[in-house]
Amino acid sequence: MTAYKSIAVLGKPDGTHLADPLNTLVLLLRKRGHRVVMDSGTAGISSNAPDSVAPLASICTGVDLVVVVGGDGTLLAAARLAAQNRVPLVGINLGRLGFLTDISADAIDTMLGSVLDGKCATEERLMLHASIQRAGRTMFESVALNDVVLSRGALGSMIEFSVEVNREFVYSVRADGLIVATPTGSTAYALSVGGPILHPRLPVIALVPISPHTLSNRPVVIPNDSEVEVKLIRGLNARVNLDVQAYFDLQPEDMLVVKVHRDKVTLLHPEGYSYFAMLRTKLHWNELT
Amino acid sequence: MTAYKSIAVLGKPDGTHLADPLNTLVLLLRKRGHRVVMDSGTAGISSNAPDSVAPLASICTGVDLVVVVGGDGTLLAAARLAAQNRVPLVGINLGRLGFLTDISADAIDTMLGSVLDGKCATEERLMLHASIQRAGRTMFESVALNDVVLSRGALGSMIEFSVEVNREFVYSVRADGLIVATPTGSTAYALSVGGPILHPRLPVIALVPISPHTLSNRPVVIPNDSEVEVKLIRGLNARVNLDVQAYFDLQPEDMLVVKVHRDKVTLLHPEGYSYFAMLRTKLHWNELT
Amino acid sequence: MTAYKSIAVLGKPDGTHLADPLNTLVLLLRKRGHRVVMDSGTAGISSNAPDSVAPLASICTGVDLVVVVGGDGTLLAAARLAAQNRVPLVGINLGRLGFLTDISADAIDTMLGSVLDGKCATEERLMLHASIQRAGRTMFESVALNDVVLSRGALGSMIEFSVEVNREFVYSVRADGLIVATPTGSTAYALSVGGPILHPRLPVIALVPISPHTLSNRPVVIPNDSEVEVKLIRGLNARVNLDVQAYFDLQPEDMLVVKVHRDKVTLLHPEGYSYFAMLRTKLHWNELT
Amino acid sequence: MTAYKSIAVLGKPDGTHLADPLNTLVLLLRKRGHRVVMDSGTAGISSNAPDSVAPLASICTGVDLVVVVGGDGTLLAAARLAAQNRVPLVGINLGRLGFLTDISADAIDTMLGSVLDGKCATEERLMLHASIQRAGRTMFESVALNDVVLSRGALGSMIEFSVEVNREFVYSVRADGLIVATPTGSTAYALSVGGPILHPRLPVIALVPISPHTLSNRPVVIPNDSEVEVKLIRGLNARVNLDVQAYFDLQPEDMLVVKVHRDKVTLLHPEGYSYFAMLRTKLHWNELT
Repeated sequence: MTAYKSIAVLGKPDGTHLADPLNTLVLLLRKRGHRVVMDSGTAGISSNAPDSVAPLASICTGVDLVVVVGGDGTLLAAARLAAQNRVPLVGINLGRLGFLTDISADAIDTMLGSVLDGKCATEERLMLHASIQRAGRTMFESVALNDVVLSRGALGSMIEFSVEVNREFVYSVRADGLIVATPTGSTAYALSVGGPILHPRLPVIALVPISPHTLSNRPVVIPNDSEVEVKLIRGLNARVNLDVQAYFDLQPEDMLVVKVHRDKVTLLHPEGYSYFAMLRTKLHWNELT
Repeated sequence: MTAYKSIAVLGKPDGTHLADPLNTLVLLLRKRGHRVVMDSGTAGISSNAPDSVAPLASICTGVDLVVVVGGDGTLLAAARLAAQNRVPLVGINLGRLGFLTDISADAIDTMLGSVLDGKCATEERLMLHASIQRAGRTMFESVALNDVVLSRGALGSMIEFSVEVNREFVYSVRADGLIVATPTGSTAYALSVGGPILHPRLPVIALVPISPHTLSNRPVVIPNDSEVEVKLIRGLNARVNLDVQAYFDLQPEDMLVVKVHRDKVTLLHPEGYSYFAMLRTKLHWNELT
Repeated sequence: MTAYKSIAVLGKPDGTHLADPLNTLVLLLRKRGHRVVMDSGTAGISSNAPDSVAPLASICTGVDLVVVVGGDGTLLAAARLAAQNRVPLVGINLGRLGFLTDISADAIDTMLGSVLDGKCATEERLMLHASIQRAGRTMFESVALNDVVLSRGALGSMIEFSVEVNREFVYSVRADGLIVATPTGSTAYALSVGGPILHPRLPVIALVPISPHTLSNRPVVIPNDSEVEVKLIRGLNARVNLDVQAYFDLQPEDMLVVKVHRDKVTLLHPEGYSYFAMLRTKLHWNELT
Repeated sequence: MTAYKSIAVLGKPDGTHLADPLNTLVLLLRKRGHRVVMDSGTAGISSNAPDSVAPLASICTGVDLVVVVGGDGTLLAAARLAAQNRVPLVGINLGRLGFLTDISADAIDTMLGSVLDGKCATEERLMLHASIQRAGRTMFESVALNDVVLSRGALGSMIEFSVEVNREFVYSVRADGLIVATPTGSTAYALSVGGPILHPRLPVIALVPISPHTLSNRPVVIPNDSEVEVKLIRGLNARVNLDVQAYFDLQPEDMLVVKVHRDKVTLLHPEGYSYFAMLRTKLHWNELT
């Protein structure tokens, strides 16, 4: 018997190299007596039929665990659904280990087996909620586990925007954009533009300007109770992007409002997982040069 | 008498605050006996009619000097035309001093007068020539004084490209883009993304990656006889931009080829001009904190 | 009557330009009926004798407030004493405003007066406690408000050290050193070496490597319950420095242990104080370029 | 017969792991009929006696080639001697490949054999000459292949200095120091503090500030005919270091003068050597993350 009676299995959308690990995974789950639910995309690739097929949008309803098979992008997509239903996630990575998907496909039987036996670390990760306000109306809202990114379009010229935190003016700047990142997102896009690494346990968010014209402008880390308001002052083709999965195109005077979301994502890590070990591997800190 | 018999006057396209300095300028040039040519846009704002009006594209033909009234952007646009005709440029700035337009509107009579008397420093700036090759055909070509910028579009995901210099492989990288910058452009966009400041006299160009995913990727400065080939491997909506004035949209497999242009831009600086003094002012190096 | 019956006044050690503001300050405190205590250095410069003179080490004992007259360095020195006695501090800056001393000498009567009337914001800042372990013995210990800095000596070659957080290995690196910074210290030395700005309210500390040889090594922000152990592996002349006020010279195999100190510093800010406004001023964010 | 009649062999000073490659090397040189000269340190480790032993200081006199066996540091030390005598160098690396020593110890027979047959690329690298002026007197002078580094001592507080290039004021800054780097040195210490990579063929030097207090201060690349004057304004324990091999302690008001040295270093690279391939390997550009 097991704590996770019903388990949703979500494969990466394009399905490449998915069939074999999916097979291994389903056999394991079957053998252990878990009920398996899949979305139709994943079911179409699986050589073992699941116990039931559900639409992606409702797949986390009524399950006790979500197993993602793919990369960090697949897990980001699943995270919103899982968080809403307070279902924990565990990620199996098909290629190189990811920042988020920390069980390799080779280790499904051993490592995932142990996780299912309860030998795992549970970690809560905060998410962001973003909305776009135009003339007092909410035009768009969505959530993100990594980041909410305001960026210029393809026109090539910088955009100009002002930032307030809890109604206190922070700065106006011309830049390529601004990343509002969670600790989870601090090792994603924000890291490439010079943001700090934020331990996942921290109750903080980071404001990381992208290519700011003011050279003294730097990443600022603020408390998790902050309401961040970013007003687009000038700039055509500016866009807001959430986890590179949802977006909205801005007009000057539009206001982007970002705050920590009420729901959190719960990640399960296999025994022996170490955040810093993962960083060393991913960032090649352990290699002598 | 003067060395600059015929002078083209080019005002900034939007014309804001242009009328007064234009008036001062034309009166000075008239009084000194120079022949004044304008494009129709500038002529429409000037309260003193020029000696002749010419289309923008041919305005540098047959003139001995170009006086730009506006900002660095206006001078960038004029530079291509001037370089082609080997005519020197001098810039008058309407607002704050620019990196390129170093005579303030208040000092037209004194400083520009001196320049016209030959009391000036002459400086040559190299330009870049960029072309896009698709399946062996040249799809686009143009020149830039600041930079040739490859960048991702609004989709939010990085692009992937490989770089070769003189047929020698440099790197493949996932990033937001790549700036190929001249020394002139080293204080423009490239500076915001972490590029070095390159003295304008240097026979070099810089390759500055924008938000590279590989954290150890750094700006590389290469000789002026380099032929840079950038091949787009993956990425939708990638665009090449020259001085934020001309652009071309890429498809995967397109090749961007950048080399130093055969023509140079000749800038005239007023007596006492100092490149480093200009940097200190623009970058606030002289301010105590 | 006032909440702050007895007030310690500490002037900056070298005393330059101290006499006049000290005079203004003492007259104000006298007029308002506060008891004034000074250390002998400050008393020697003051034209108005204090009510009592005490040794610097015990000056915070029995007082209700410390007023620092000087710069950020003077406040850093006073902070350790004040924290130990749980006495709040307020800083008067003689020159340019500091990150910590936010009342200008010109505004002693008005702004400090208001603070003494209770019209102020109270802010707690965490401090660090550092100790050096050699072969199981504690060789040195002290506290810092800004940072604990491990750095190479003058020999010119990098040092090598390993870092653990709560006994979990983080990385080994060759570098010029490592800064363990509080949020307060995040705008001091750590900012110059690429660290992020940490809002003073955050329960975090930052590990900022100084010129790391591994280019992908980046600042890491960790929780305030972290015990940081830094072991010197190789390097002659390595030194640990606290707030540039106390130091200890290391030998290979020595272990630097840093954690959040039990005492906090309480700062009083005048009404209308804004952390972000202070940043904009100090970092020139509000200047157009 | 061979173009390199007499060859100096220089081993790394500490001699670790030197005996075997030295043996392979001497056997190869003997077999090919080269005359072998060693310094006494290297000779003491070699199981095959050289044809002659010479003092290190004069070992490059009368030889046609210097073979360095060690790491980049060993080659840096040999470079000054070789440059003075216009003798080319080739480097054999005992461990990981270096930026400068590009033949691995495993490939002595094949790759060095080819180099000795003339199948190699010849590359000239510029050096720096530095002198310290105190009250008009030259207190110290030396040369460097990588860099001349001004840095603060162990006291922990920044130093303040001003920089002029060809008598033109560049900036005054408070910082941990300043690196004047050659293109060769651009991938050494300068890279760790944010300097650009400069192609070795470039006629330039870089001024790279170390942890500048002014956040907008950035690396500046200047022509090779520049005379750089750095004046120490404030700071105790400041030191000038050349290639981490020679140093001089400064007093306030001392002037450090750096310019390109009259001698160049000639490096021989094995056939197929690629500068960018070496960068990719050393900086892990080719690794997927």
